[in-house]
Amino acid sequence: MLLVRREIGDVLRELRQGKGHTLRQVAGRASVALGYLSEIERGQKEASSEILYAVAEALDVPISQIMREVSDRLAAVEQIQIPDTVPAEFMVGFDADIQPLRR
Amino acid sequence: MLLVRREIGDVLRELRQGKGHTLRQVAGRASVALGYLSEIERGQKEASSEILYAVAEALDVPISQIMREVSDRLAAVEQIQIPDTVPAEFMVGFDADIQPLRR
Repeated sequence: MLLVRREIGDVLRELRQGKGHTLRQVAGRASVALGYLSEIERGQKEASSEILYAVAEALDVPISQIMREVSDRLAAVEQIQIPDTVPAEFMVGFDADIQPLRR
Repeated sequence: MLLVRREIGDVLRELRQGKGHTLRQVAGRASVALGYLSEIERGQKEASSEILYAVAEALDVPISQIMREVSDRLAAVEQIQIPDTVPAEFMVGFDADIQPLRR
């Protein structure tokens, strides 16, 4: 089963590490318990919308960007290409089963 | 505060209505209590990843597509244009504060 919380956890952890922050720093800024944030990052706990908002703020990343990255990863797992700006009629002749690039 | 569950609720309700399904039908297919699904659609309850998965299946919509729509709506509220395929260097001269289209 494709669990959104796992992708959210991966994205939050990678964003945090990419910015060189520790769990303790982000948990402190977001006023979230360190153990709870750790469980969220490992996909073991659901983040409430309020906590997601606070962690996004603490990471200084728009929440839309986090969810966009989550949707991209879900799409990769679902092996679906979600069209961005290319209308369907331009896609005729393309193989709908093309595998998305894995990161 | 920008709450992801509100956007998720709106997206799930619009998808359901767009397909002409009742709350009862989708709740039944997803094995979710009708009242709980109703609260999720109204943004009053967080949907667990398992419930989100079940509702997406019941709606026959990829979960990535639901989260993509959610991220697009969050971006509209945050007034951020998230680049899809246009590299940053091509965006020189564009106003970063351009308002996204509201749907």
